[in-house]
Amino acid sequence: MARIIDGKQMAEALLAQVGTGIAERLARGQHAPALAVILVGDDPASSIYVGRKLRACAKVGITSRQYRLDRAVSQAELCDLIDRLNADPDTHGILVQLPLPAQIDANAILDRIVPAKDVDGFHPVNVGRLSTGKGQGLVPCTPLGCMMLLDSVITQFRGRDAVVIGKSNIVGKPMALLLLERECTVTVTHIATQDLPGIVRKADIVVAAAGHAGLVRGDWVKPGAVVIDVGINRIALPDGTTRIVGDVCSDEIAHARAYTPVPGGVGPMTVACLMANTLAAAQDLDRPG
Amino acid sequence: MARIIDGKQMAEALLAQVGTGIAERLARGQHAPALAVILVGDDPASSIYVGRKLRACAKVGITSRQYRLDRAVSQAELCDLIDRLNADPDTHGILVQLPLPAQIDANAILDRIVPAKDVDGFHPVNVGRLSTGKGQGLVPCTPLGCMMLLDSVITQFRGRDAVVIGKSNIVGKPMALLLLERECTVTVTHIATQDLPGIVRKADIVVAAAGHAGLVRGDWVKPGAVVIDVGINRIALPDGTTRIVGDVCSDEIAHARAYTPVPGGVGPMTVACLMANTLAAAQDLDRPG
Repeated sequence: MARIIDGKQMAEALLAQVGTGIAERLARGQHAPALAVILVGDDPASSIYVGRKLRACAKVGITSRQYRLDRAVSQAELCDLIDRLNADPDTHGILVQLPLPAQIDANAILDRIVPAKDVDGFHPVNVGRLSTGKGQGLVPCTPLGCMMLLDSVITQFRGRDAVVIGKSNIVGKPMALLLLERECTVTVTHIATQDLPGIVRKADIVVAAAGHAGLVRGDWVKPGAVVIDVGINRIALPDGTTRIVGDVCSDEIAHARAYTPVPGGVGPMTVACLMANTLAAAQDLDRPG
Repeated sequence: MARIIDGKQMAEALLAQVGTGIAERLARGQHAPALAVILVGDDPASSIYVGRKLRACAKVGITSRQYRLDRAVSQAELCDLIDRLNADPDTHGILVQLPLPAQIDANAILDRIVPAKDVDGFHPVNVGRLSTGKGQGLVPCTPLGCMMLLDSVITQFRGRDAVVIGKSNIVGKPMALLLLERECTVTVTHIATQDLPGIVRKADIVVAAAGHAGLVRGDWVKPGAVVIDVGINRIALPDGTTRIVGDVCSDEIAHARAYTPVPGGVGPMTVACLMANTLAAAQDLDRPG
C-alpha cells in the first residue's frame, strides 16, 4: 500500500521549528518577526486563506498586521502602503493576497515589494535567484513545501524523471526549477500537452498542480512513483453537499510509493513555509551589513 | 531532405534590421547605442568572442567601448567600473565576458549591472521576468536567437513536445522557459538524465546545448523533428588539424524537418541578438519616464 505523506504533521513540525527560531530571537533581545498581510476586497476564499495565515502567525509567535483595503483601492494607494511597509524596519515580511481587483496591475504591485521582504517569493529578483539556483532568495511557499514533502520520502533525486502538471508562476514553474536543481529530468506539462497520461506514466515523481479535480487517474501513475497533489478543488456531491478533493484520484493509486492527501498534504505545508520564510526574512534583515 | 536553417543569413537580416533602427535613432537626433564590453584577463576564446561582438557593433553602428582589465583585478575595482557604467547616461549596454577569474564572485558582478543595461539578460530581475513570462526584460542572447531560428520553420508551437539538452543558466533553463511560454510541453535533460535517446526520440523540437561533440545521433531524432544545435565543440581530426562541430551528428539527420548547422547556425544569431538587445536597451533607457 502507498504511504500517505502526512502534510499536516510535517507542517506542525516545521511550525514548531519556526517557533523555536523565534524564541531564540527573543532570547537574544530581537523583536519577533512581523508579517504585513494586505487583503483587498472581500473575496471569501481570500479571506479564508488570510485567516489561516494569521492564525499560523499567532501560533508560532510572528507578529501579524492585517491591512484590509476597499476593493476600489487605487494603484497609487496600494503602492504607497507597500512603500511604507518596505521602509518600515519593524516589518519583515509583506504579503499581498492574490487575486487583486481588475483595476490593479498585480505585477507592478508584486514588483514593488522589496525582495528581502517578499515572503511569497514572487518578486522577479527572487524568481530569478530560484531559476539560476544561486540561492539566497525567498522561494514561493507552495513549491518549497512540496520539496519538503518529497524530501520526506525520497533520498536520491538525481536522474529521476519528474513531471509537473501545470505551468503557473506560483507552483508549476518554480517547482520545475527546484526539481531541476536536484538534478531530476523535468517535464513541464499543461493544458496544451498531448498525451498527458503517457507522460505521467513514465514519471518517478509527479507534482499535480492543474486545479482540475481528479485529473490524474490511477492508471496514469507508475508503480512506485511519488505523487504530490497540489490541487484544492471543491466538488459538488450527489447529496447536495460539497467536498474538497485534489487533482489526483487518490483512491486509485495504492500502487504508488507515497502520495500527499487532500486536504492535509500540500495545503498545511504552504502555510508553514510562509512562516519559515517570514522568519528567514527577519533573520536576513537583522543581519548586520 | 532536412532543411538547413541558415543562421548566418538570418543573423545578417537581424543585423540589417538593427542597423535601420539605429539610423532612425540618429535621424531623430538621438545618440547611437553604446555598448561597454568588459574583458578580464587574456583567455584566447574570450578574446575571440569579444572580437566578434565588437565587429558586429561596428557593422550596425553601435558605439562600443572595450575595457580590458588585468586578470588580477579585484572585486572592488570591477564593481567600481560597473557602478560608473551603470551611472553613465551614454552607456546603454554592459557586458562582462565570462568566465571571470577565480578571485572574482561572478554572480555578484552580474547582479551589480543595472537590469536595464544587462544586455546579456543574466541579472536576476531579467531572469525572473523571463521565468514569469511577464516580458519587458532582456532575454539571454543564445536562447533568444534559438527561438528566432525556430520561428523561421515552426508556426505552431502549442502542444509540441520540446526537449532541451543541458540545464545551464545561459542556455538550457532560459530556453526551456521560452518554449514553455509558447505552450510547448518541455522536458529539460542533462548529464544525470536516464535514457536520453528515448526522451529525444519523442521530441518535435530538440535544442542541444550539452557541449558534447556529436552527442545526438541520427537515430535519436524523430522524423520531421526540428533540431537546434547550440554546441560549439573543437575536435581533433586524424590529420592533426581541428574542426568545430556541434552537439548533433548533422550528417545523420536527413530525416529531420530542419536543423541548424555548426558553424553558421546559433553562433551568428547569438551575436546578432546581442546587437538587438543593445538597441532595445538604448530605446528603453531613452524613453521618457
